[in-house]
Amino acid sequence: MTDSIRVSVVQLDEYGPWTVEPAPRRETDLQALQARLYADFADFVGRSDGYAFFNRFDNMLGIANDVDTDEYERFQERVRNRYPVTVSVGVGERETPVGAVEAASRQLQVAGSAQDPDRLEVLSAGPTTDSAGPITVGHFDIVGVTESFTDTEHAAAAGLEIQQSMVALKRRLLAEYDSIAQFVGGDNMIAVCPQLSEDAFGDIVDHVYDRTGVEYQVGIGSGATAHVAGGRAKRALEHCRETGTRVHEAVTARQQADD
Amino acid sequence: MTDSIRVSVVQLDEYGPWTVEPAPRRETDLQALQARLYADFADFVGRSDGYAFFNRFDNMLGIANDVDTDEYERFQERVRNRYPVTVSVGVGERETPVGAVEAASRQLQVAGSAQDPDRLEVLSAGPTTDSAGPITVGHFDIVGVTESFTDTEHAAAAGLEIQQSMVALKRRLLAEYDSIAQFVGGDNMIAVCPQLSEDAFGDIVDHVYDRTGVEYQVGIGSGATAHVAGGRAKRALEHCRETGTRVHEAVTARQQADD
Amino acid sequence: MTDSIRVSVVQLDEYGPWTVEPAPRRETDLQALQARLYADFADFVGRSDGYAFFNRFDNMLGIANDVDTDEYERFQERVRNRYPVTVSVGVGERETPVGAVEAASRQLQVAGSAQDPDRLEVLSAGPTTDSAGPITVGHFDIVGVTESFTDTEHAAAAGLEIQQSMVALKRRLLAEYDSIAQFVGGDNMIAVCPQLSEDAFGDIVDHVYDRTGVEYQVGIGSGATAHVAGGRAKRALEHCRETGTRVHEAVTARQQADD
Amino acid sequence: MTDSIRVSVVQLDEYGPWTVEPAPRRETDLQALQARLYADFADFVGRSDGYAFFNRFDNMLGIANDVDTDEYERFQERVRNRYPVTVSVGVGERETPVGAVEAASRQLQVAGSAQDPDRLEVLSAGPTTDSAGPITVGHFDIVGVTESFTDTEHAAAAGLEIQQSMVALKRRLLAEYDSIAQFVGGDNMIAVCPQLSEDAFGDIVDHVYDRTGVEYQVGIGSGATAHVAGGRAKRALEHCRETGTRVHEAVTARQQADD
Repeated sequence: MTDSIRVSVVQLDEYGPWTVEPAPRRETDLQALQARLYADFADFVGRSDGYAFFNRFDNMLGIANDVDTDEYERFQERVRNRYPVTVSVGVGERETPVGAVEAASRQLQVAGSAQDPDRLEVLSAGPTTDSAGPITVGHFDIVGVTESFTDTEHAAAAGLEIQQSMVALKRRLLAEYDSIAQFVGGDNMIAVCPQLSEDAFGDIVDHVYDRTGVEYQVGIGSGATAHVAGGRAKRALEHCRETGTRVHEAVTARQQADD
Repeated sequence: MTDSIRVSVVQLDEYGPWTVEPAPRRETDLQALQARLYADFADFVGRSDGYAFFNRFDNMLGIANDVDTDEYERFQERVRNRYPVTVSVGVGERETPVGAVEAASRQLQVAGSAQDPDRLEVLSAGPTTDSAGPITVGHFDIVGVTESFTDTEHAAAAGLEIQQSMVALKRRLLAEYDSIAQFVGGDNMIAVCPQLSEDAFGDIVDHVYDRTGVEYQVGIGSGATAHVAGGRAKRALEHCRETGTRVHEAVTARQQADD
Repeated sequence: MTDSIRVSVVQLDEYGPWTVEPAPRRETDLQALQARLYADFADFVGRSDGYAFFNRFDNMLGIANDVDTDEYERFQERVRNRYPVTVSVGVGERETPVGAVEAASRQLQVAGSAQDPDRLEVLSAGPTTDSAGPITVGHFDIVGVTESFTDTEHAAAAGLEIQQSMVALKRRLLAEYDSIAQFVGGDNMIAVCPQLSEDAFGDIVDHVYDRTGVEYQVGIGSGATAHVAGGRAKRALEHCRETGTRVHEAVTARQQADD
Repeated sequence: MTDSIRVSVVQLDEYGPWTVEPAPRRETDLQALQARLYADFADFVGRSDGYAFFNRFDNMLGIANDVDTDEYERFQERVRNRYPVTVSVGVGERETPVGAVEAASRQLQVAGSAQDPDRLEVLSAGPTTDSAGPITVGHFDIVGVTESFTDTEHAAAAGLEIQQSMVALKRRLLAEYDSIAQFVGGDNMIAVCPQLSEDAFGDIVDHVYDRTGVEYQVGIGSGATAHVAGGRAKRALEHCRETGTRVHEAVTARQQADD
């Protein structure tokens, strides 16, 4: 069996034009709309043990092996009945996260431009299997962030330094490991990866430290769903926090996932 | 009269520990919680024509000249009655946005660590005036983003490239112009600035293009509140989109703001 | 095969005490909390084609044949991670809606009082089958409500008259037909019923008219889930609105439901 | 100074047609939409120490002496930017709550029918003063409800019996005392009243007991805003719960309100 991962891209339809028609809408209303739509999407995929990444807010990512394509119709219906905007959804499944995002994005791109007024509520999927999985999740955070940043630097400077190191981390994961990553608040970054060794994660953490001086630790977990893999990664990260280890993989994760 | 700007830092109390006690909580639930709390904060400051930046989600920023310190008690009450977490709020007012964030952050830092179990629901403000304002807002977006990124690159790559250029933009604004900035979705970045010339904004856009190859345009507006200034900035940005101008300031903005 | 219907009772744990400790909480915050929790519950059962009734808000009902008992754990987890309160859930399945509510309520009552501080996050189900269904839904509304009430009476008087007739309708359904009903906004009442004839619905509508002078029309539908049955009922009600018929059953509903 | 009270009626525009076009929308989505819109309205008036009544959901009431007419524009803007529906608002101020609801309703009725496709986002107010207030609030609940209903009867029967007594209570308040009332969850009813004596409240409680056999207790408070009056009423109700008194008025409420 080959590993595979199923990803969805959720794109707001004609959102740019809507934000300025008939006149520019109030910024806090737009921010609140995007945040609530993301929260709803997180709830939606979370119901099936998936993960959601806000990405650019108007283009969100779902990592959801257990959500069938037609279940997204229910999400599209909910958005249509709850918000003044609609969404299109592309679904892709491939061996790597980046491959899956490419496949899902392609589904939407071939259906038309994101600002094409006729491209509304598209739902389009490439080939999927019944056996997507397992997934590997790396949950990163910054060693000693409260002491080093939150309690000592002002909020904007701390936010920027953290964000810069996150971009370096994300870039490394994407370019070298076909992995996708998302800042998930505070000093936390979650990566969805193909099967990678602890050594690979060690190299990633070292690379970011060399480039930015910010030291990350990472817990690693694998499982049939993002939630299961991510839960193991979080517990592995707790182990790092307690022991000072920089990289820790939940030991039997891969074997368990293969069950 | 000296310009001044009032900023609030909203910090979740003991949030890190809460997310892992008694066991790590489901990631999508945490994501949804943070996003909804941010949406509520955006609504709250938006009611008084302010702006909200999600920053790190567990440390949000409010740009809200017209929100008095004691009004934040109502926000703290609402959070306490609606969420399983509470928030502390620091308020600062200074001549520049960065100065104000420093002052607001300092209010919280002197009250105790963000992870101090006894530091709950702090509300603390430095000196404020009755005459905060005016504010200058720069609303940036990327020239031709739909054609260059959304419709041609996969969602994760497009997201990363945009994010990298945003970090360069944010860094420049913070380091050279005492300004704070926030990615607000899509390809949009909003900066809150001291009074800056069109030339200064031109230099910023050029700098980011030189460093990252991503070309921004920016609309600039000033006004008594973030909403008024930001509304003018958005309309100025519409002018950029229509004419191909890279930098445009709402002409009478500063004069109007002085009224 | 015997028809059966599966119902859940969702009860806020120790909610009364919480609303007044350490001091009475702001009423609008409590109202907003209850309404959002209900909206979330509606979304939750709606995902599986169920219906939600707000009932007393602190005791809500779910009509959800396709939600297994263990899926409610996910709802309990979501509430715990999102709100300052928790919920207990009882599940019952019987031949009639009232029987199912009794069975579900009993599950909670045997676990302890709603205000027992030790009775938190109970999840308890009586016997359930794999073949719950079909369900019959009656969707009632008031003939000519906009002309008779909304546009001619003040909002409080119109609300009271409508509510009085709804109580009469609900009482009749409960006492004579083992059915449960819920006001769902405007002039709409939804009843979940055992299999009843059009004549029975006609008697119900006549009874309410005799008692209160308010004339209802009703669309009737049956199906494997509340959503399917209710969708047919809504379309049947559209038929009433168009033709002036007071009672209309989607013709092949029962047969289709038996498929 | 004559007492006066300011009330708003918030009406969803063309909501009935929207719920069935192009086809009947999913019931749980409608329920969730209405509940969230109500929660947002409660937050909105709550920010200014007002109260919100859901009434019929598509026709809500705001008791908000301190919300000026033009502030409702902000609420209308928020709804337009957040939901797929819009709202019209009528504002009225009179000596009694019923008078104020009549005045507010009239503002909308003269503007056109609730289902007139051209009557969108109306905002219309009758004469208002700068000195609305004070307000008297009666907070009622049922003596021993947990033992008598929640823990002993099934959820649907308990809900119905409570609702029947609430309708009797509401009817009495409306018909005899020019007061408006709303079920606010559990066994709680909140009434907004002109200045009434403790004896009058005693008569009301007796009347409902005679008619329905359900025994209420009531705490009474007055104040400049619904929140202040309601807070006093809640504390007075706590006094009833502790002492067994059926009617209790916060002693200095009226005097304090006159300050």
